[in-house]
Amino acid sequence: MQYPLSPDVKPEFCSLGSFMRLPAARPGARLAIVGMPFDTAASYRVGARFGPQAIRLASMLLFPYNPSQATYPFEQTKAIDIGDLSVIPHNIHKSYEIIATQVEELMRAGMVPIGLGGDHSVTLASLRAAAKVHGPVAMIHFDSHTDTWDTYYGEKYWHGSPFIRAFEENLLIPSKVFQLGIRGTLNHPDDMNASTDLGFNVITTRAMKRRGMDDVIKQMRETIGDTPVFLTFDIDFVDPAFAPGTGTPEVGGYSSFETMEFVRMLTGFNYIGFDMVEVLPSHDHAQITALLAATLVHDFASLVALSLQKPELSPAGASAQL
Amino acid sequence: MQYPLSPDVKPEFCSLGSFMRLPAARPGARLAIVGMPFDTAASYRVGARFGPQAIRLASMLLFPYNPSQATYPFEQTKAIDIGDLSVIPHNIHKSYEIIATQVEELMRAGMVPIGLGGDHSVTLASLRAAAKVHGPVAMIHFDSHTDTWDTYYGEKYWHGSPFIRAFEENLLIPSKVFQLGIRGTLNHPDDMNASTDLGFNVITTRAMKRRGMDDVIKQMRETIGDTPVFLTFDIDFVDPAFAPGTGTPEVGGYSSFETMEFVRMLTGFNYIGFDMVEVLPSHDHAQITALLAATLVHDFASLVALSLQKPELSPAGASAQL
Amino acid sequence: MQYPLSPDVKPEFCSLGSFMRLPAARPGARLAIVGMPFDTAASYRVGARFGPQAIRLASMLLFPYNPSQATYPFEQTKAIDIGDLSVIPHNIHKSYEIIATQVEELMRAGMVPIGLGGDHSVTLASLRAAAKVHGPVAMIHFDSHTDTWDTYYGEKYWHGSPFIRAFEENLLIPSKVFQLGIRGTLNHPDDMNASTDLGFNVITTRAMKRRGMDDVIKQMRETIGDTPVFLTFDIDFVDPAFAPGTGTPEVGGYSSFETMEFVRMLTGFNYIGFDMVEVLPSHDHAQITALLAATLVHDFASLVALSLQKPELSPAGASAQL
Amino acid sequence: MQYPLSPDVKPEFCSLGSFMRLPAARPGARLAIVGMPFDTAASYRVGARFGPQAIRLASMLLFPYNPSQATYPFEQTKAIDIGDLSVIPHNIHKSYEIIATQVEELMRAGMVPIGLGGDHSVTLASLRAAAKVHGPVAMIHFDSHTDTWDTYYGEKYWHGSPFIRAFEENLLIPSKVFQLGIRGTLNHPDDMNASTDLGFNVITTRAMKRRGMDDVIKQMRETIGDTPVFLTFDIDFVDPAFAPGTGTPEVGGYSSFETMEFVRMLTGFNYIGFDMVEVLPSHDHAQITALLAATLVHDFASLVALSLQKPELSPAGASAQL
Amino acid sequence: MQYPLSPDVKPEFCSLGSFMRLPAARPGARLAIVGMPFDTAASYRVGARFGPQAIRLASMLLFPYNPSQATYPFEQTKAIDIGDLSVIPHNIHKSYEIIATQVEELMRAGMVPIGLGGDHSVTLASLRAAAKVHGPVAMIHFDSHTDTWDTYYGEKYWHGSPFIRAFEENLLIPSKVFQLGIRGTLNHPDDMNASTDLGFNVITTRAMKRRGMDDVIKQMRETIGDTPVFLTFDIDFVDPAFAPGTGTPEVGGYSSFETMEFVRMLTGFNYIGFDMVEVLPSHDHAQITALLAATLVHDFASLVALSLQKPELSPAGASAQL
Amino acid sequence: MQYPLSPDVKPEFCSLGSFMRLPAARPGARLAIVGMPFDTAASYRVGARFGPQAIRLASMLLFPYNPSQATYPFEQTKAIDIGDLSVIPHNIHKSYEIIATQVEELMRAGMVPIGLGGDHSVTLASLRAAAKVHGPVAMIHFDSHTDTWDTYYGEKYWHGSPFIRAFEENLLIPSKVFQLGIRGTLNHPDDMNASTDLGFNVITTRAMKRRGMDDVIKQMRETIGDTPVFLTFDIDFVDPAFAPGTGTPEVGGYSSFETMEFVRMLTGFNYIGFDMVEVLPSHDHAQITALLAATLVHDFASLVALSLQKPELSPAGASAQL
Repeated sequence: MQYPLSPDVKPEFCSLGSFMRLPAARPGARLAIVGMPFDTAASYRVGARFGPQAIRLASMLLFPYNPSQATYPFEQTKAIDIGDLSVIPHNIHKSYEIIATQVEELMRAGMVPIGLGGDHSVTLASLRAAAKVHGPVAMIHFDSHTDTWDTYYGEKYWHGSPFIRAFEENLLIPSKVFQLGIRGTLNHPDDMNASTDLGFNVITTRAMKRRGMDDVIKQMRETIGDTPVFLTFDIDFVDPAFAPGTGTPEVGGYSSFETMEFVRMLTGFNYIGFDMVEVLPSHDHAQITALLAATLVHDFASLVALSLQKPELSPAGASAQL
Repeated sequence: MQYPLSPDVKPEFCSLGSFMRLPAARPGARLAIVGMPFDTAASYRVGARFGPQAIRLASMLLFPYNPSQATYPFEQTKAIDIGDLSVIPHNIHKSYEIIATQVEELMRAGMVPIGLGGDHSVTLASLRAAAKVHGPVAMIHFDSHTDTWDTYYGEKYWHGSPFIRAFEENLLIPSKVFQLGIRGTLNHPDDMNASTDLGFNVITTRAMKRRGMDDVIKQMRETIGDTPVFLTFDIDFVDPAFAPGTGTPEVGGYSSFETMEFVRMLTGFNYIGFDMVEVLPSHDHAQITALLAATLVHDFASLVALSLQKPELSPAGASAQL
Repeated sequence: MQYPLSPDVKPEFCSLGSFMRLPAARPGARLAIVGMPFDTAASYRVGARFGPQAIRLASMLLFPYNPSQATYPFEQTKAIDIGDLSVIPHNIHKSYEIIATQVEELMRAGMVPIGLGGDHSVTLASLRAAAKVHGPVAMIHFDSHTDTWDTYYGEKYWHGSPFIRAFEENLLIPSKVFQLGIRGTLNHPDDMNASTDLGFNVITTRAMKRRGMDDVIKQMRETIGDTPVFLTFDIDFVDPAFAPGTGTPEVGGYSSFETMEFVRMLTGFNYIGFDMVEVLPSHDHAQITALLAATLVHDFASLVALSLQKPELSPAGASAQL
Repeated sequence: MQYPLSPDVKPEFCSLGSFMRLPAARPGARLAIVGMPFDTAASYRVGARFGPQAIRLASMLLFPYNPSQATYPFEQTKAIDIGDLSVIPHNIHKSYEIIATQVEELMRAGMVPIGLGGDHSVTLASLRAAAKVHGPVAMIHFDSHTDTWDTYYGEKYWHGSPFIRAFEENLLIPSKVFQLGIRGTLNHPDDMNASTDLGFNVITTRAMKRRGMDDVIKQMRETIGDTPVFLTFDIDFVDPAFAPGTGTPEVGGYSSFETMEFVRMLTGFNYIGFDMVEVLPSHDHAQITALLAATLVHDFASLVALSLQKPELSPAGASAQL
Repeated sequence: MQYPLSPDVKPEFCSLGSFMRLPAARPGARLAIVGMPFDTAASYRVGARFGPQAIRLASMLLFPYNPSQATYPFEQTKAIDIGDLSVIPHNIHKSYEIIATQVEELMRAGMVPIGLGGDHSVTLASLRAAAKVHGPVAMIHFDSHTDTWDTYYGEKYWHGSPFIRAFEENLLIPSKVFQLGIRGTLNHPDDMNASTDLGFNVITTRAMKRRGMDDVIKQMRETIGDTPVFLTFDIDFVDPAFAPGTGTPEVGGYSSFETMEFVRMLTGFNYIGFDMVEVLPSHDHAQITALLAATLVHDFASLVALSLQKPELSPAGASAQL
Repeated sequence: MQYPLSPDVKPEFCSLGSFMRLPAARPGARLAIVGMPFDTAASYRVGARFGPQAIRLASMLLFPYNPSQATYPFEQTKAIDIGDLSVIPHNIHKSYEIIATQVEELMRAGMVPIGLGGDHSVTLASLRAAAKVHGPVAMIHFDSHTDTWDTYYGEKYWHGSPFIRAFEENLLIPSKVFQLGIRGTLNHPDDMNASTDLGFNVITTRAMKRRGMDDVIKQMRETIGDTPVFLTFDIDFVDPAFAPGTGTPEVGGYSSFETMEFVRMLTGFNYIGFDMVEVLPSHDHAQITALLAATLVHDFASLVALSLQKPELSPAGASAQL
């Protein structure tokens, strides 16, 4: 390698540094942060390629211990951050391949990857890897949009279609897919049906509020059980007041408090991967979106760490106190 | 007309384009978007003349169908957007006349106007038109301020006085006026009495929270009944975290979720006009205020569309699902 | 004094003007606003030295009467604003001395000071003054952090340690210290124990929500009783969506509505001082953080004003209406 | 006076504090800063009412001595800052009257006023005062626009017309009016002729660059001589890169270095008044516009101070060194 | 067409309105504004798809007459604005085709198109159209980069390669290509040779300054003569202080004054097309980049208008005065 | 080392990553980037601790080759970036010690350090190291301020005093100190004399412009000759339009083009160290300040690289072409 690294060797939008200054490798790693700075598939505002960098910078404000779950997520999982993948802005398929190859490799090495997007289309690549390793998986999907639109001006691969593609490619167990937080205007009622017709469970923000978190999570637990599950989090699930830095915001979402409460209750699932997508730093301010995303990554890692603990070490007690 | 349009012909602060790219005219129109870029009557931060433009730009993120009300508001109403009125910054009375004339014309043509402000004083002009066509009307008024202060340094017409002027001009049925979301510090207790003494119903944000939406709306329904009603929405009703782009913000307001829930429950009234005022783009960020305003305009249009449907087609079912 | 005031005579970061244009002195004053533009003790983002200025500018949006408490806080207390103290950025101990001397003088003159920070370390100086005048005091502490870390890279005096120092200096009655709103990641579980081991009452944001405001305040009332109490408010208690302008934000906090409700219920304590710290204008937008801080200062003053009224003049009635 | 000052007593957009912390009065004052926060006459972006405040805040970065002119402008002139005038947003004529009355009073008291706008229409009020005291005056006018358009949608008084009004009211000696820096697109060639037909000297930015500063200033000196002269400075004279915070920017202007060089060469005129207008803080960033404006005010004051010195104390030597 | 226009029918990032409110069509049009909101080929910051919208909004500040050239560019050319082309973010080739088809159609209809980008790769599409209609053309290229890099991570079509592709496709007369303003760091000296080896004339910013405008333009006139010429303007030609809103800024460029002087001297060429690319609104502030771009479009149109006048009507006289 | 790195181990404001992705070490290194994120000594705006991070992020836009000097600065010098030093915000002397120790070590290892500040006081630490290794040195100092004020409210060590302290500590050869670009208002004429009385050469911005670069550089060459020289660059040397992100801006400075021209002519000196200070990201926009700083660092490295080449390989030829 010749230094300085020219943009010719590694794209210049790739992040500097690592999440919470994790090392790039260490023995026994069970969790890996992976930057996926790909945003060509976005339909409106673009620039989520700078999302991984923003989340890593915001992670500097975090500390190792998560009192809500009584766990040291990154130490217990011997977590690493392998940096940003060298995706290619103008080449969707090659970028997916680069992502899928890397994610598969991590999974086969016994690690749970946490992808940092990038636009939501990167999840398709992760699901391809997941299905290769685990077969079709369950999915917990936080988003204001179902992302099961078919095409965009004739294009099949964009950030509004990853889950219909995943369905077609048989990467998901439809009845074990939960789409949470859906809201906003639509082209047609069929936009929503696009998901329910596939067999996905769509739970709108209004329904989540009406039913209460416990009820929703109970249904998810009963339905998903021990099935390997991928958790994908589009930051526009959260209200734009709390997460202004995103590409296709929808007003009327959860607050950050509500969001974290919900996520922290999602213990006990058999997680095989995560991602945090659609963070758009050019529209963030005071890092509040990036900090929320980084804090949620900390919580995702905590869910992984908890699953590595003995089941009888329930976090409920600690959680109840803090 | 000679092109390009010189600022001499139409003020340069007038918006480009239309809300959701609606046409300027079409047969059978029952709803009209009207820009009212007048802000000379503002007392603190100014610049709401750019509000209509910001709301229209944000409307690009919206889709035609409103799943919360199971309606296509703009198609069902054959909505149009007639652009911005050529108000004159330095001439309050002429500007009111321009607005009132246009609003009256739209109302007489069977359309429900949705005005985009502009400062809150434009509502007086709309109410003048409304009273001409319908006689004194009921009013549902979302705001953190009552806007019934009498004068401002001797001036009778400013954005803090439209509703005392409307009262004096006999444009309103005082007992059927509901001022919702009032809060914040005052000059004197009398500032609040200014409204209640006129016979208006003042319901503070705290009272709304304490009583609950159902109770408040029940009272409104019983009081207003079938009377023609004008709905005016000052964006500072909402908390500044959700709507920073406004001229005289008050902390401690509703969230966007709560706001939309409330608005969506306001079905069944006999709406004859709406407006959305005090959106100040120079203090917005990431378009979040403008997007909330545009989404509420979509909801206002939905209320109109629902009223055009047969009453037995209650939206409750659809609403309950989404 | 030679004019113009050179930065040589008074630091150039000192505020212009006064809170709500209060006078610098008047007979019978019972309340004094004091700027404490010291931020050298901050560990991450700096610049809270411009906090007092921002809060004063935002105070221009406030009016004299507080309808939630049915009081004119600044008139009833004959409040003054003595401006910013000439703290010295590079000299922590001298700055504390300057602050403590002034606060003590105000307290001895029968005034309740409301300090405007500045980083949170300024509270140590105020507590030194308070203890000199009143002996060890009770404390109501709003914050997302306990600020009882011991040292920072060997330094004992920084914005993460004021309350362990205050404990060591015997300025507080530990059992009468309430730390409210604590949340976020930690170095170790011991970070939290650092407070509880001192005998402080730590109530996390989650616990506040779970228990409800009434229950928490009941405990505080029973514990603190008539003891002189200092109320310190770190703006990062509030969620960053409502208060982005701060140095070490934590997502998942209270909304501004919830915060003000809580503060307004804190009547009946024997307040001997207040401060509002960690407002960072460089990361604020549309003044929303500064406006929230200014409104809370208005509420603090209202608590003082109420305590000057006869106890039988309970504000409950007025409060209940607005 | 009852404290706190309610917005009812003095508009809330009025500045806190004073320029460089000057006193509001002192014996022997020969120079007075006067805020003129009036912006209702603006045709596009509004908000210059916050200009005086921004300029005063930026003045905190300035020191008493001006090495370019070897003078202490504010000490030598015993300068004062009388604060912002209580102009009334919605009332152009009353606001002009308030301004003119105050400026006349200052002039009659032997002071040179430096007005801080506000939009450019405030200059008309100052010129009315000047003409009352001195008869028609000469004018040095920095601007990208001539501001001699006749009417704006029928309105005669707006920020594009002050100098045609001043001409009509016989406040200026047309042949001794220099409009410097004019540039940008026009409605018609007649827009420029509007000025030259009045007998004004129009010198475009291009002409200034082509001719060189010395040549332009020589012409001005020869033409104006000892006639009392008013210097009015619209910040949009400067290129928007250096002064983004303004209402109707024109690209292609002078840099700040060139601007200050020019202004500093304008010694030896018989100045009877100045103003600095069209600073729009909502579009400024990092205070660069306000700081430039404040520095130019410092230079204006230096020109006054120099004129109070004996003529043989030419600043040329000092100037040449720094 | 069904209204409102759904994002399904026309991408939601397409502009509202038209440049200076020009009509979409009129008889005898000789000039057409065309939005090309394509930015997928950008290598670093993205979002130039919002460039056309920003330029059109800024055009509201412009007036019809250009005094520097004594012409009414848009009236004399009967200019139209056909809006934004429905490019497809994820499909470079289809987007080029859409652009090339439209540009060719305009050229064949006798119009000079002025494209509003979008990233610089859109110029390749315009050159394809130009070559179809006119054969290989001359090119005047303002930019800080040569954009003759071959591939980007294996991709041949991106915003750094349009001119090597144009060379390969035989769209240009290499000896008649002038690349002006080149500067900044490189991978290798060969990056520059990439252009000179093709036979292009590369003139760096330093060389432009050293040689002077007259000398450079003389060389261009002598070399290009009457050959049809396409003028492409990457806004990063200008220094980031004047044009911060761009994707790959290079410090050390021309000022806006210098830029406009240069462009205004480019009379007498046989222009067959223009574009203005790489305006990135998310990184602009106070619209200064967009306003500069809009003003330059006004100047481009003026060059077209002048070429329609009789040659003996030289603009030199008017220009010399203003 | 335990991962993740807790803020307890390394301050959280320390940069992620390295300049242009240089390695932290490699054999034969002759140049080292060193972050010095210390800003406690700043007198007005603070936050330059985030300067190193911002400069490194902006360096992603740079390429390895510098065509203006025909050199690959970082390859030829085998440059490294050792990251940010763990300075301690609240401890000036310990921080200086940490910096001085590291800089001395680098110098003794045959490397030329390029420090990234931080406020300007860090230069004192570097000069201490330099004098230890080389004895008193010459200094080329770009700045709008002389930074030879004695004390600040009694404090001797702050960002306005490093060079009087350096003088007192005998770290500089006074007659070989050049302070370039000085301008702005002062407390007294003596502020300037403070430098000249020490024997420093003060050359104001005006003088630089009047004399021309060649003349100034000739004087510097003749005076400094082969003496080891430290080059310190305060970004406020440049005009705020080009470098808004700084703590104590002065209007009227050089443009970025002029600045780079000047720096690039400074070949042939015997450089033993550099720094780039006072970059304040919280007041930057669109990264323009950070990008200018990074480009200048590239130029500094080029000066080092050139000095490693044989003298007969003069860069003049290459430079003349580009």
